[in-house]
Parts: sequence; C-alpha cells; structure tokens
Amino acid sequence: MISRLGQVSSNGTEMDYYPVLIDGAWRRARARSIFRAVNPATGEELPGDYPLSDFADIEDAVRAGRGAALEMMTAAPESLADYLELLGERIGGATEALARMAARETGLPLDPRLRLVEIPRMIRQLRLAADAARDRSWCRATIDTQADIRSKYAPLGGPVVVFGPNNFPFACNALGGTDFAAAIAVGNPVIAKAHPYHPGTTRLLAEIAFGCLEKSGLPPAAVQLIYHMQPEDGLRCVAHPMLGAFAFTGSRPAALALKAAADKAGKPAYIETSSLNPVFLLPGALKTRAEEAADELFASCTQGAGQFCTKPGLIVFIADPAGFAFFKVLRSRFQGSQPGVLLGRSVLEGIETALAAMGNAGAEVVVGGKRVGATGFRFENTLLHITGESFLRNPAPLQQEAFGAVSLCVLCRNEDEMLGIAAVLEGNLASSIYSHEDGADEALYQRLEPVLRIKVGRLLNDRVPTGITVTASMVHGGPYPATGHPGFSSFGAPISFYRFAALHGYDRVRRHRLPPELQDRNPTGKMWRLIDGEWTRKNIERPEERQA
Amino acid sequence: MISRLGQVSSNGTEMDYYPVLIDGAWRRARARSIFRAVNPATGEELPGDYPLSDFADIEDAVRAGRGAALEMMTAAPESLADYLELLGERIGGATEALARMAARETGLPLDPRLRLVEIPRMIRQLRLAADAARDRSWCRATIDTQADIRSKYAPLGGPVVVFGPNNFPFACNALGGTDFAAAIAVGNPVIAKAHPYHPGTTRLLAEIAFGCLEKSGLPPAAVQLIYHMQPEDGLRCVAHPMLGAFAFTGSRPAALALKAAADKAGKPAYIETSSLNPVFLLPGALKTRAEEAADELFASCTQGAGQFCTKPGLIVFIADPAGFAFFKVLRSRFQGSQPGVLLGRSVLEGIETALAAMGNAGAEVVVGGKRVGATGFRFENTLLHITGESFLRNPAPLQQEAFGAVSLCVLCRNEDEMLGIAAVLEGNLASSIYSHEDGADEALYQRLEPVLRIKVGRLLNDRVPTGITVTASMVHGGPYPATGHPGFSSFGAPISFYRFAALHGYDRVRRHRLPPELQDRNPTGKMWRLIDGEWTRKNIERPEERQA
Repeated sequence: MISRLGQVSSNGTEMDYYPVLIDGAWRRARARSIFRAVNPATGEELPGDYPLSDFADIEDAVRAGRGAALEMMTAAPESLADYLELLGERIGGATEALARMAARETGLPLDPRLRLVEIPRMIRQLRLAADAARDRSWCRATIDTQADIRSKYAPLGGPVVVFGPNNFPFACNALGGTDFAAAIAVGNPVIAKAHPYHPGTTRLLAEIAFGCLEKSGLPPAAVQLIYHMQPEDGLRCVAHPMLGAFAFTGSRPAALALKAAADKAGKPAYIETSSLNPVFLLPGALKTRAEEAADELFASCTQGAGQFCTKPGLIVFIADPAGFAFFKVLRSRFQGSQPGVLLGRSVLEGIETALAAMGNAGAEVVVGGKRVGATGFRFENTLLHITGESFLRNPAPLQQEAFGAVSLCVLCRNEDEMLGIAAVLEGNLASSIYSHEDGADEALYQRLEPVLRIKVGRLLNDRVPTGITVTASMVHGGPYPATGHPGFSSFGAPISFYRFAALHGYDRVRRHRLPPELQDRNPTGKMWRLIDGEWTRKNIERPEERQA
Repeated sequence: MISRLGQVSSNGTEMDYYPVLIDGAWRRARARSIFRAVNPATGEELPGDYPLSDFADIEDAVRAGRGAALEMMTAAPESLADYLELLGERIGGATEALARMAARETGLPLDPRLRLVEIPRMIRQLRLAADAARDRSWCRATIDTQADIRSKYAPLGGPVVVFGPNNFPFACNALGGTDFAAAIAVGNPVIAKAHPYHPGTTRLLAEIAFGCLEKSGLPPAAVQLIYHMQPEDGLRCVAHPMLGAFAFTGSRPAALALKAAADKAGKPAYIETSSLNPVFLLPGALKTRAEEAADELFASCTQGAGQFCTKPGLIVFIADPAGFAFFKVLRSRFQGSQPGVLLGRSVLEGIETALAAMGNAGAEVVVGGKRVGATGFRFENTLLHITGESFLRNPAPLQQEAFGAVSLCVLCRNEDEMLGIAAVLEGNLASSIYSHEDGADEALYQRLEPVLRIKVGRLLNDRVPTGITVTASMVHGGPYPATGHPGFSSFGAPISFYRFAALHGYDRVRRHRLPPELQDRNPTGKMWRLIDGEWTRKNIERPEERQA
C-alpha cells in the first residue's frame, strides 16, 4: 500500500485523511474539509477520511501537469502504450480488492457486474487504447509532398482534467477509465478528479497507476489525483491557462457551469450529461414481438438500477391495440420488480425532482414512483405514461433525465404525432427504432429516421441502447445537451482520442526536425498516413534520393 | 441583375435599399436601419443603401435554413460538388465586376491582389472543396464488420452562419469563401452575414451563388444572405436551437461574445481572432542573411497594408551585433515606405488603440506611429521595439494585435530570454523560426521548438508566415485566442470540413437503411474507408454472400 494517512491539525484537533497524489508524490492535501464515502445499500458512512482540496492543491497539480505535458510531447508512443497495457495488467491482478471496494462504495453487484463485466471492460479499453497509440495511425499524418506541408494530431501541451462520473467506477473512472485512456494515449498527463461516491476505488486505482509510471518511463506527474474540490474551484481549474482540456460526465447544471468557464478561457470542454435515448417502437414491430420488446426494454431500463447514460428513458409508440398490448406487458414487468441500490443520495433525490417535473408536465406514474426502505438509497422501478398530444404541449420538462430505473411511455395517436415527438427531441446519445422484420414499417421508418438522425449520436435498429461495443466505429456522443459538441465520441479507440488532441502543422520545416510520424520514412512501417491524397503505409521516396 | 431595390417607408420618408436573400427569395428586409459602404481610400460613402436586419429576418433565415438542412442531409455529394464547381466557374466569369466592386469597397488593389490573386484563390478553394466532397473520403467511413457497427461524419442538420471578415472580400467572404465552401461541401446550408465594409461585393457573390442553386438541385434556402445585424441579435442568432454552428473571423471582443452565447446553447462555435504570428530569428540566421530576412519580413508585414491574419506582429531576436544589423536594415525598409489603404475606420482606430496599449507597456515606436492624410484611412507602416526584459514584465498588453502594418521587435539579451518570450506567448495561428543553414543554430532550435510548438497551429522554418498553400495538410488554426479550439483548421480541404460535421453512428442498422458511404459496396469504388482497421477502397465481401 502506497497510501499513508496524513496528519493535520484543524480546529485544534488531529485528523487523519488520505493524501492526494500531486507532482509525483502522495502528499498531505491542503484540505478545506474532509468527507467519507457512504455505503448506498445502508446509508452508513464507510471508514476512511478523504480531503476536499483547497485551490492550492489544484494549482500545484495543474502546474506539475503542464511540466509533465511538455515532457510527454515527445514521449515515444511505445511508452504510452506500454504504460496503458501495464496498467491494465495490474488492474487485472488487483481485481479482487478493487471490485470489493467498489461494491461497498457503489452498491453495484460484485458479480457479474463489477468483477466479471466492468473490470474486464476497463482492461479491454486500456488495451485497445494502447494498441491505437502503438499503431500511431490515429494521428492522421497528412503529407503533401509537392508543397512540403505536413500535419498531424498531437498532444495538447497541458494536462487533461477528468471528472469521473458516479455510475461506472471502473470503465469510466477518472483514474484509468475511458477518458483517462484516451488522454494518455495521445500523450497528455491526466489530473483525475475522483467521484466522491467512490474515493476508495479511485485511490486504489491511483496507487496502481502511479506505480506503473516509472517502469514505462513516463514523468511522475503524468497521473495525479485529487479527491474533491469546491464547485468554484472546479470552475477556476478548467479555466486555468496551463490546462489542456477537461472532460466531465455527470449532472447537467455542473456540466454547463464547467463548460461555460472553460469556453470563456478558450479551453476545449467535453461534457457528457443527460440523455433520454428514446426508443421508437413502430406498429409492425409491436404486432409481431411486443412481449420480446417489453422484456428487452424492461431489462435495459432496470440494468444497473437504471443508472446508465444509455438507459431508454423515453419509449414512444402508437396507441393501437398492439401498442396497448405492449404497454400492458411492459407494465407487468415493472410491477413487483425488485429495485436496485442507487449510487447515492443525490441520485435518489434527482429521481424525485425529475418525477415531480414530469408529473407537473402531465406524465402519470403507472408503476412505482416511491422511495423504498428506510435505510440506503432505493427507488421503485418506475414506469410513467403520457399521451403524445400532452408531450407535445410541454416537451422540455418531460425531457428531464431521471437517472435511475425510470422510463416514460409516450402513447401517440398516429404516425404524424410520433414524428412530431421526434422533431421536438433535444440531443441524445442514442436512439433506437424497432420495426417489423419485413417491410411493413419501412415507409414510417424512412420518414422517422431523418428527423431522428440529427438528434442522436448513435442510431440502433431493433435493440435497446444499453450495451456499448468498444470499437473504432463506436459513437458515444451526440448533440447538446447529450454532449457539448456533436463531432466527438467519448468511447472507442482511437475516435475518443481527438477530444484531447491539437492539430499541428509543419510548413516546410527541415526534414530532420519533423516528428517521426511526418518524416519521409514511415516510423513503424505499418502506420497509415495520408500522402498526396492516398492512405498508405509506404515511405516517401524522392527521385533525387533514389539517384544518390 | 437579380437585386432589386425594396421600398419601405420609415420615419415618414420613402427609402430604397437592397433586399436580403431569405428562404429562396430576394425580399425586403425588416430593417432597423440602413447603412452604406465607405470607400476607404477617400472616406466617402459609396452609393447603395443596405439594411441592418431586425431579428425577424434572422429568425426566418434560421428556420428556412433548418428546412434546407433537413433536405440536404441526403443530398448526393455530387450535387454539392457540382454546385461548388459551378459557383467557382461563374465567379471566374464575373471577375471583372466583382474585382472592381471589391476594390472600391475595400481599397485593396485591383491588380495583382483582387483580380489575379484573390479571386483565383477563391475559385481554387471552391474546386478543392468540390473535389473533396465528390471523393467522399473526408467523411471517414469507419466500419467494424464483426460487430456490424459503422460511423461517419455527416452534416449538422442545421444551417451554418458565417460571419465574414473584413480583410479577404473573396477568399474568406461569408458568401463563397473558405468557411462557406467547407459548410456546403459537408451538406450544410449557409446563412452568410456580410461584412458591412463590403456589402456590394457580397451582394454580387450572393446573386451568383443563388443563381447556381437550382441547376445543382440544392434547395432554394441552401444559401441565404443578411447584410448586417445588431450585436445582441448576433448573440441570439448563434444560440438559436435550429442552428448547426457558426464561424466568425474578426475582432476578439465580438468573437468571444458570440462564442460564449453559442457555447451556452451547446452550439459548435468557431472563432478566428487575433494572432501575432511571432517570428524567431536565431543568431546564426542573422549572421548570414540579415538583409534577406529583413526584406522578407518587411514585405510580409506590409502586404495588404498588414491586414493579414498571419502577419508577423512580433519579431524576436538576440541583441548581438548581427541582431542590431538586422534591426537597422528592417528599420530602413520601414522608413519612408508607402502606407497602404486600410479597410475602414475601425481598422485605423484599432491600430491606434493597440499602439497605445503597447506604448503603455513599454514598447517604443521606431518608425511610423501616425495617421496619414486627412481623407481616407491610412496609417504609417510602423515598427516598434522593446527589450526582452520589458516584454517579460508585461506580456499581455504587448500581445494585443495591431491589425495593420505594425510589428514589434523584441530584442533579447540572450537565448534564455528568447525562450522566456516563447513561454509567455498566447496561442497563435502561425510562428516561424529562422535558423542558420547548417547546424549552427540547431541546439537553440531544439530548445525553442517544444516551447513554441504548443502555442501555434502552423510552424514554419526560414520563411514568413503570410502566404498559405491550400492543401489537405494545411493547418490554419491554433490554441486560444488565435481560435477557440486547437483541433481544427479553417483552411484546407477536407480538414476544414470537420468544423461543420457531426459524428453519426449506426449500431447494427439494417443494411439497406445505411447511408451509401457505409453500405458494404463502396459507393464510388474510389472513396477511402477504414474497414476493420485498414484503409481501403474495396467493397466489403461477405463469405455467405459469395456462396449465394
């Protein structure tokens, strides 16, 4: 164990709390206050005090991060790849301790979720990012030989601050999750801001990640950890002149405040916030497989207690006999179903706030709608419904995300009303259209798709939006308010890398001074480069050199 | 001539002013006021009244633009390419009238600048954008065949508003310039906001551009024109929920206000504002070619009366004998040189404001520094100097862009001071390092380059930053405040397209419903696609289909 308890006198009493990782050392935080994680299954505090840092800690971390960033500008991609791989291996070796800590802090099931699904996915993400870093093709080396102008994507030259979300303590952890992997693969240092719901998990990950740095030859400040900060210090942090960029996954008000601060300072800001991931069930699909669709949607809505960013929060269909039959089955699946443990008190309260707003806007609860139990954080699996007409009268509050096992069914009078719903949707991460196996729904699909297409990053057919395959082609992004920019993705290697990259042009720079990826010789013999409009793995050969 | 004079009664009098182009028709503006262009060579108003639109015009244009955007989502890339090519051809045919109008409105020389350089460059940009649109490789179709997940870049689904700059009435005109070409090539409609210094040039371009729409099969609202709007209506415009994105090139305060409004609304914002484009002259270079460098820098500083976004506004060198000799030659080139005509009154006043700020921060005028003549807008070609030490004491005001033939020489005591200057620089579009032909400056170059690299989009060797070759590899971008995001470029096809594109994912969408670029068959047989990690022009062939 690298962690040590720091000693500090505050208010005249001695307090012990975990140190932060800044500038290559575990050191005592300049703490404004301390906090503890809470076991959401019981509502009780877990042992272990964690500091809420003063801005002095953040300032130190950003400055050290800038130093590390300058060193990493010229780091060999192999070092970055080795690091990510080693980290994945060691996380694999520590699975038991990590999963147990996370289970206590998040209430998520040890099996299969944490031990068999999420940690393996985290390791796979790290390996894919490592592969892409080693391959180097991601940097899109572009060379025009006649003009001798060359360009590539490169690190930002400043640290990336990652604010981790509450819901994926491994796959999306600020320390080792998808944003972390992308930022490091590009060659940026990371300052991880732990989610205060799972500081212990993040601490264990940071110990592993810090331990891997030296062996890979990365600078000691390439990975830093701060547990918590005041909201106003977060705003100062993301606007810091030495920062590279920030990524935040979480609630909309916090995301927008951070984005505004970074935007004002001209820093790239990546937020991922609410998404309803609407599912449209076309009439033909419901005629032939209403029960199957209801089963899939129920499972998708309640998976992880509904705390997935791709949970279907809106289910839209036509109120014909098949639609009513589907609705009846879906209702029966929700009825009497066992609620999961929510990640924390704010999640529980957020659901209540969202339900109140939806209720005021005319949605009615069909199943659920109440807290469960006196201890811990649980909420009934909740299904609501509303007519399409009522939805169209007041679409904004009905699109407030209820982050939990809550879904709103919109019963439309006809196809035009369904198209109207699609037209008033805000931006979403994903949306799915279920249609008849043969051509029965094709005409409606062809009318609906163009309206929906511009509202979502990822479009699916005949399946629920939860479940993300981490591939090069995956899109986990979308128009505002799902994210802050529709041209990026936060999953998938290397597509997720571009959030943390700057475009570097070299205009007739002497050849020996070019970065390896832009020199005439292909540095790996395998990386793809766009030379004179052709993607190729070849070297550039010059006639005058061939003669020499 | 398509333009007609509208009739409106305002304040009881009849006024005639040019109509705006909204929703496929030249129509009378809801004008809040009217304005005229000014001949900057004389300071006199030019004939022709133009409207400053009320927000009602903007609202109509954005709504019509959204309608056109939905139509254009599925436009064949060939239509977009045909359109851009036809536009280039017709602009070529109208060169004479266009160049004469622009010369009157901007004071820029007819020859070679407008007729022989800028209009041909505009046409070349349109052709290159057309080629890239037709080729389709720019959309980076990415396909993972095993998972059956596919993605590509696509239009935004809303109009792009382009606010054109004052300095390139053709190459960067909101109507037909580089932003316009990129937005249309992707498949987005454009709402051009003319620069009020050259409304007549923009009107003529709009007449040509509107006339080309029908033949290419694009919707009538694919191109719209508004001449002017109030600043607060600009803020409402860029935050409009139906907007795709906006691009603005111009002054920093206006750029930042627009960006903040768009950022808050979650709309992609592309600003290009001030840049000093610092040139570092290393000691060995000055020993061998001080005179040559001085000639090049003088020409670069005064080209287009210094009103280039890549003008070298900062010249940094060591105050050794060779440095002083260079400085003396540069000074002699500025002395007695003929000032050009500035684009308008605000440019003249901007230079005076910037010079005052630089003077307060310790810079001294060596040559120039005053207005010229009683009529029209001219300012002496101006050279300032300051010591490195003084620069480092107060770097912010000394980095205020003086948009004109103004350049500040920074005389450094030694190499470390030069590195210190690089370290405090803000973001820039370009920077150049002059070094000795052989290895004499190599050690200093290797220390300077990493510090400078993260501050600029485009790095040059041994040449001035003005003069941009429009290629696939060109980078015209850079960190804030040069632009709002270091990962984009506003010149170069197709690299400039990505500003106006959304990432669209298709997760197991039925094959016949995929856009042509993502279907198994390569739609052109030539476009590059990334299939299972390999860039290829081949079709996807499936074993089961080969057997069938």
